Amino acid sequence: MKRIAVLTSGGDAPGMNAAIRAVVRCGIAAGFEVYGVNHGYNGLIAGLFRQMGPRDVSGIIQAGGTVLGSSRSEEFETEPGRERAVKNLTGRKIDALVVIGGNGSQTGAYLLNEMGFPTVGIASTIDNDLYGTDQSIGVDTALNIALEAIDRLKVTASSHQRAHIVETMGRDHGYLALMSGIAGGAEHIIIPEVETTPDKIGAVIKKTYDSGKSHCLIVAAEGADWNAERILAHFRGKPELGFSLRATILGHVQRGGAPTAFDRLLATRLGMAAVDQLTEGKSGILLGLACGEIKTIPLAEVKNHKKTLDLKILAAAEKLAI
Amino acid sequence: MKRIAVLTSGGDAPGMNAAIRAVVRCGIAAGFEVYGVNHGYNGLIAGLFRQMGPRDVSGIIQAGGTVLGSSRSEEFETEPGRERAVKNLTGRKIDALVVIGGNGSQTGAYLLNEMGFPTVGIASTIDNDLYGTDQSIGVDTALNIALEAIDRLKVTASSHQRAHIVETMGRDHGYLALMSGIAGGAEHIIIPEVETTPDKIGAVIKKTYDSGKSHCLIVAAEGADWNAERILAHFRGKPELGFSLRATILGHVQRGGAPTAFDRLLATRLGMAAVDQLTEGKSGILLGLACGEIKTIPLAEVKNHKKTLDLKILAAAEKLAI
Amino acid sequence: MKRIAVLTSGGDAPGMNAAIRAVVRCGIAAGFEVYGVNHGYNGLIAGLFRQMGPRDVSGIIQAGGTVLGSSRSEEFETEPGRERAVKNLTGRKIDALVVIGGNGSQTGAYLLNEMGFPTVGIASTIDNDLYGTDQSIGVDTALNIALEAIDRLKVTASSHQRAHIVETMGRDHGYLALMSGIAGGAEHIIIPEVETTPDKIGAVIKKTYDSGKSHCLIVAAEGADWNAERILAHFRGKPELGFSLRATILGHVQRGGAPTAFDRLLATRLGMAAVDQLTEGKSGILLGLACGEIKTIPLAEVKNHKKTLDLKILAAAEKLAI
Amino acid sequence: MKRIAVLTSGGDAPGMNAAIRAVVRCGIAAGFEVYGVNHGYNGLIAGLFRQMGPRDVSGIIQAGGTVLGSSRSEEFETEPGRERAVKNLTGRKIDALVVIGGNGSQTGAYLLNEMGFPTVGIASTIDNDLYGTDQSIGVDTALNIALEAIDRLKVTASSHQRAHIVETMGRDHGYLALMSGIAGGAEHIIIPEVETTPDKIGAVIKKTYDSGKSHCLIVAAEGADWNAERILAHFRGKPELGFSLRATILGHVQRGGAPTAFDRLLATRLGMAAVDQLTEGKSGILLGLACGEIKTIPLAEVKNHKKTLDLKILAAAEKLAI
Repeated sequence: MKRIAVLTSGGDAPGMNAAIRAVVRCGIAAGFEVYGVNHGYNGLIAGLFRQMGPRDVSGIIQAGGTVLGSSRSEEFETEPGRERAVKNLTGRKIDALVVIGGNGSQTGAYLLNEMGFPTVGIASTIDNDLYGTDQSIGVDTALNIALEAIDRLKVTASSHQRAHIVETMGRDHGYLALMSGIAGGAEHIIIPEVETTPDKIGAVIKKTYDSGKSHCLIVAAEGADWNAERILAHFRGKPELGFSLRATILGHVQRGGAPTAFDRLLATRLGMAAVDQLTEGKSGILLGLACGEIKTIPLAEVKNHKKTLDLKILAAAEKLAI
Repeated sequence: MKRIAVLTSGGDAPGMNAAIRAVVRCGIAAGFEVYGVNHGYNGLIAGLFRQMGPRDVSGIIQAGGTVLGSSRSEEFETEPGRERAVKNLTGRKIDALVVIGGNGSQTGAYLLNEMGFPTVGIASTIDNDLYGTDQSIGVDTALNIALEAIDRLKVTASSHQRAHIVETMGRDHGYLALMSGIAGGAEHIIIPEVETTPDKIGAVIKKTYDSGKSHCLIVAAEGADWNAERILAHFRGKPELGFSLRATILGHVQRGGAPTAFDRLLATRLGMAAVDQLTEGKSGILLGLACGEIKTIPLAEVKNHKKTLDLKILAAAEKLAI
Repeated sequence: MKRIAVLTSGGDAPGMNAAIRAVVRCGIAAGFEVYGVNHGYNGLIAGLFRQMGPRDVSGIIQAGGTVLGSSRSEEFETEPGRERAVKNLTGRKIDALVVIGGNGSQTGAYLLNEMGFPTVGIASTIDNDLYGTDQSIGVDTALNIALEAIDRLKVTASSHQRAHIVETMGRDHGYLALMSGIAGGAEHIIIPEVETTPDKIGAVIKKTYDSGKSHCLIVAAEGADWNAERILAHFRGKPELGFSLRATILGHVQRGGAPTAFDRLLATRLGMAAVDQLTEGKSGILLGLACGEIKTIPLAEVKNHKKTLDLKILAAAEKLAI
Repeated sequence: MKRIAVLTSGGDAPGMNAAIRAVVRCGIAAGFEVYGVNHGYNGLIAGLFRQMGPRDVSGIIQAGGTVLGSSRSEEFETEPGRERAVKNLTGRKIDALVVIGGNGSQTGAYLLNEMGFPTVGIASTIDNDLYGTDQSIGVDTALNIALEAIDRLKVTASSHQRAHIVETMGRDHGYLALMSGIAGGAEHIIIPEVETTPDKIGAVIKKTYDSGKSHCLIVAAEGADWNAERILAHFRGKPELGFSLRATILGHVQRGGAPTAFDRLLATRLGMAAVDQLTEGKSGILLGLACGEIKTIPLAEVKNHKKTLDLKILAAAEKLAI
């Protein structure tokens, strides 16, 4: 193997740059030439390659985002699109590709590999919904960003006797909401995986008020049945539950900013491991953290399964918030 | 003078606790007994007083929010409400009151003083719209919180070639939006004081894209004619301007969390000055920062004037964002 | 079992409060009365117990330090000291004890349990040197604090063409130095487990300068053979290596401040698990994180073994810093 | 005037980049060509000029340090050195120079201007000791960094009943120590401007312990007569004062990292004002913040006077810490 390429795809996640840096520097140390692809799969189709040396990844380990840029590529979902991509890769005599991204990106990696182009994935998504991986690049940072906002909101809610709904990212998967809710001491956590009702929500708010607490914190995932907007709309005009109700939708700030130590280390180790795998001639696998170690899982398995959320800690949430 | 009371009123602002602490400790050092009032003017009407000693304000200088709690009191806007408040104060032999808050709160302070009860105000509001004060308690912290979110959003926007609208607090006053926009390097700033049009907004976005920048940042005040929601709704479905459009409404996080050094120092100095004024038998004034120093301004003037925003720096915003 | 007690011992670690909170609230939910012991083993010997209810641990999940206080107890290392401790426990009809702390504290827990008093340990130390545990409470936060300082120092070092030595905590164990070094992109990492020489250090500095980098970062553990002070003293007056040399000893800031999401979640889960163990009548074990899950390990094993540092990632440090 | 140059000199200060950005973009908007000089006065002597366009200062407003690099130049203190510098400037047809830096740098600016080369200074130093300026670029950020460390140390000191000495930067000027001490709620503040004795220090520690507080915080400037090292050495081996004694020397972290909102805004406004001054043909002045506004002061006055520290707030420190 002489040449490898690396790209970042899908939603950006803090730590992607640390992974790029590890792939580039360890790749070079392993004797490869390393090419970066700009703008994810769109860039692969457009042929946006540039060779990268050690100095090209200087100072990026603490930077959020991705220096290569990213994209969600509709064209790559088509066969002609993928054929063009492979053509660009082989045309530049590139022997293998590293794909840093989440579910959609890894499905793309699977397809590329099936077409005969050796591809290796690195698990990176703040949603933390990649099958076979306990925690992806970007999750720890997103959790801490959500937690910082939650800590701030508790302060102001306490000053005004308020119930505050904080909506985190998470369209299908409630990991961020669940974990930031537990870490933030939320009185109630609402996730897509578990149904709730406005009566239940109202009961929690009222019970918290009656217990003498100075605020009530509810954390909801954006994709939950009852998210911030819907809850506010429901309780508007209705008799108060003791606390007045406010909401904050955290949005895209959860993606941005300097990656934490955990994410830099995870990303670095995954980048190193990707180079190791390629050195050994392996491909068609996703690298991620499982049971505390860097493990590989066949991309076919990742594509064919849906990650389920461990709900054991949700059961404890109520006890913890008494 | 033997007894003074202190309360926090209206929206909470980071630094209020540092002001309370200074009033309590300097008040005691000046020979006063100091009473805290819980829950702002509502608590004044309900008679929620508690005497405070040095240990009651331990460890609060770095805490956001207010240990006394706050409120927006409808009852205090009525004469009977205010009469009850004065009755509670004189009933406990309290000689003067310190009111930490923004415009509404200082209007209340003015009225109390007019009724013959010596009252002194401390300028505190993240909107920074108190006449006669260049910068109130809470503004520096709110600015830095907004800036932190802006820095994060620029990172993720750059990864995806996006234009991002960040909406800050500021229903009538554009200070937060203007200053966080300049400090965040925004391409466009939208405030209540200056009209804009969607054509102008669209032109900025397009020009930024054409200039080769990797993102476009627009900061808008919540009370501006064209805020985040309105802008998004307008451009939905229309031909793209190069960048795709996203928005984040910062909301209440801007109120919460540990006050910065500036706010702790300002609040401390204002609390000290309030005690000095009362020691000299002064009242009916607001204490705030003007021209770099702690100054007093008659509450009557504060009530009768509207603070205008210095727009000189807005003119520079375009040059700075080329 | 009707009554349990909980104490924090040894160096404080961010997240201890989250663990206390979980023990208290889950303990109460499980039907126990929960007693907090002030000031660690010294307080156990002095009989400083106080019953704790849900409100006593309100708002502490985000607080660093420990609301119970801590100590390093010389008296507890003696048999009479421990006998007094047991007497105090049984005198108050306490059935079991939870000890939150590091190596010294867990040795104390082992001894208490050997004396017949049911004791369960929770792994908490920023040194991360507890045998059988991959990561203790406090480590993630300490890592991020060190990293924040490292990020700041790289900025100023780059402005002045400097080599900067950052010394982290770690008297016998190099985990903090190793991981913050990798996450911070250090050119060289010096830990107690691996010998180095000033010639090697000088060679790294010179090579970094010659490679055109604008700064050189060296991370050293306080207990390493060549720590900051020793390195500075050695190179003082000698011919320069391209960069001028500076050092910062991080010290106790690494212990303080709000725990990260990881530490709050780990501490919460360990506290929950401790209550589960006691409910099942188990004792004489330490609870910690191993292979990504909460596991138990007999206190006897913890006491009798020394944790070794996984040096694999150190080998990669050089490749990563090219 | 057609060409201007800008350099940063002396110790780096967070916000320098925001000032460079404003000089470049406003300079270009005013019709100038703008040249950056690398490595301060050393670079001026070596002729390290590079023309700068708007894209050269993209994304630097939030970056600490200085993209131009800095130096403390011994050669510039000599007449031949300065003559070479002027020769390089005139050789490239540069009409004026902007110097961003502290006292030493502004003395250099004064000398250049005296030699007939139009020079304008921008006040930038974390020591805050420039005569005629209330607050320089970098001070607010350095204060907040010191404060963050102080907040962390109070947390851990409280857990262990300790007295902690925090040493800030400030060789001759106690501003940082004084203000971070007040904002951090220090029990005692030690600065170069005011003498103290170990007896006085010991008395404060003992009195704090006796009052029942859980910790004692002392903030000392590095250049104070009794700094951290000296205090520790003095009390070593002596009978304890209730609390055990620890110290942290903050060092260079105070220079690094992202500038706060205040510093970005101040730096931006100073950069804009510098361009305005040059447009009007002014020179030989320093631009800084005084009485809340951007003001000019003749470089001759800056050079000939020493800034004194306003000690009024120091007197209040004791009352505030009761």
